[in-house]
Amino acid sequence: MSDSKVFGEIPGFPIGSTFRNRGEASQAWVHRPPRQGISGNRRDGANSIVVSGGYADDEDLGSEIIYTGAGGNDPRTKRQIADQSLDQPGNAELVTSQLQGLPVRVLRGAGGDPNFSPKSGFRYDGLFRVSDHWSQIGRDGFRIWRFRLEALSIEETQGWRPELPEGTPVPKRLRSMVTRVVRSTEVSNSVKRMYSDSCQICGVVLNVPGRTISEGAHIRGLGRPHFGPDTPGNILCLCPNHHTLLDSGGIYITDQLEVRSMHHDALTSLKVAPGHILDADHLRYHREIFGFEDPRL
Amino acid sequence: MSDSKVFGEIPGFPIGSTFRNRGEASQAWVHRPPRQGISGNRRDGANSIVVSGGYADDEDLGSEIIYTGAGGNDPRTKRQIADQSLDQPGNAELVTSQLQGLPVRVLRGAGGDPNFSPKSGFRYDGLFRVSDHWSQIGRDGFRIWRFRLEALSIEETQGWRPELPEGTPVPKRLRSMVTRVVRSTEVSNSVKRMYSDSCQICGVVLNVPGRTISEGAHIRGLGRPHFGPDTPGNILCLCPNHHTLLDSGGIYITDQLEVRSMHHDALTSLKVAPGHILDADHLRYHREIFGFEDPRL
Repeated sequence: MSDSKVFGEIPGFPIGSTFRNRGEASQAWVHRPPRQGISGNRRDGANSIVVSGGYADDEDLGSEIIYTGAGGNDPRTKRQIADQSLDQPGNAELVTSQLQGLPVRVLRGAGGDPNFSPKSGFRYDGLFRVSDHWSQIGRDGFRIWRFRLEALSIEETQGWRPELPEGTPVPKRLRSMVTRVVRSTEVSNSVKRMYSDSCQICGVVLNVPGRTISEGAHIRGLGRPHFGPDTPGNILCLCPNHHTLLDSGGIYITDQLEVRSMHHDALTSLKVAPGHILDADHLRYHREIFGFEDPRL
Repeated sequence: MSDSKVFGEIPGFPIGSTFRNRGEASQAWVHRPPRQGISGNRRDGANSIVVSGGYADDEDLGSEIIYTGAGGNDPRTKRQIADQSLDQPGNAELVTSQLQGLPVRVLRGAGGDPNFSPKSGFRYDGLFRVSDHWSQIGRDGFRIWRFRLEALSIEETQGWRPELPEGTPVPKRLRSMVTRVVRSTEVSNSVKRMYSDSCQICGVVLNVPGRTISEGAHIRGLGRPHFGPDTPGNILCLCPNHHTLLDSGGIYITDQLEVRSMHHDALTSLKVAPGHILDADHLRYHREIFGFEDPRL
């Protein structure tokens, strides 16, 4: 089995295992690539990363890490010298891990945040999930992609403990769980009622026994790090498909309320009920974090 | 504020609070209706239920309850004497609570499972989520609808503790969280690859930066109480909209692989890739649990 397929904990290397250098971590299968910070491939996802202070914009909060994607930095100065793209190797891997709910092994190295990093070498700090990604202009004035990683609980980690059939040299890839969290609030329910559960983009109504289904989609996300408000001006009534596309940057909405694909094709006009006033700031924020609008311009 | 809108814990009545009779529970706002077992309305969802042995098919496992929907039973003998429908008052409320992720207060009454029920009167046993619903033929030979309720953790319950602005007589309805759990397995990934993420029902491919998105939909659910297998014959590659419809019984699939609406309209033929052999038993199971096929015939 290829090294890029080994997800979850590596038998014999529990949380806290230390490695003198990257070569030892690679031999242990905990982080295979000798140099890159992100291990994996685009199709299967990232299975491990190294956090060691190589990017100025990394933020380490212990059980949560805001990790900077790959590319655009000068390895000597650790400063960004160019925009990053989601298509850069490493970044697409982390998007796949988020969408597939795959666990990512996190290694911290001596150069990272002194509160959480080993004094020397590298330490395996457990499995994390990728719970969000967005872009912004980093400290050095270039576009960076940021990935939020959250530590799995002990229970969740145990769910990823591989079963080892006799003779298996490396763990099997196990079942993963993807949870799409759809926040339902009294405010989003009021927006959904304005449209009788009809999608503001395609008009579809999902009929199931006993009721109709739609989702209240926050344009600027609630909670960290987006801090969008739970107000009608920040909520759209969408079908699950268009909610998925909006949340992943597959579509965006112009100030003229035109819905466009990520390739900038005009798809349709957003249907807006009388009295539902959308906040242009939140639409712009959504365009900015997915790279459809440049906040530097 | 109407009684049917009060979701979450009632201040002053923590877990374990006891009531001599239904009248006391009603006065406390813990379970308002004087007689019905399910409180709430179809639009807002169920906010409380009583489990007291009124239905022969109830199963109480402590932190999990398989609750029988309303209707069709003889209150004197507690036996089912007619089929239940999801449209019956009470049942639609529980479906709304499931789809909206709303917490349901559970009262146990004497008369329920002796392992978990009070010796007399009624006891408030905390908040539960409705995690699933399906139908089957009950002990007495009639169709019943069953709802799985799972106790919230202490942390989740605290997330539902109401903020009480000054002068608010009853708690505000708070934000709820709905999590759609989409299991992604190596097997479902292999099915998704057979279709290059194109929905087997509508053909759509969701394009987002860096990848395409589809969902592996288990026809017969994994885990309790369905125990469906994680095999290609039990998995469809669907878009989130059609996955939602399949999981909620808004559509079903015939043995001839015709996709039908819940009103039995033929919608389209399922697209099936060469070599993807679907298991007719699982398609029938899905039809049975949503009432589209009668296992008694």
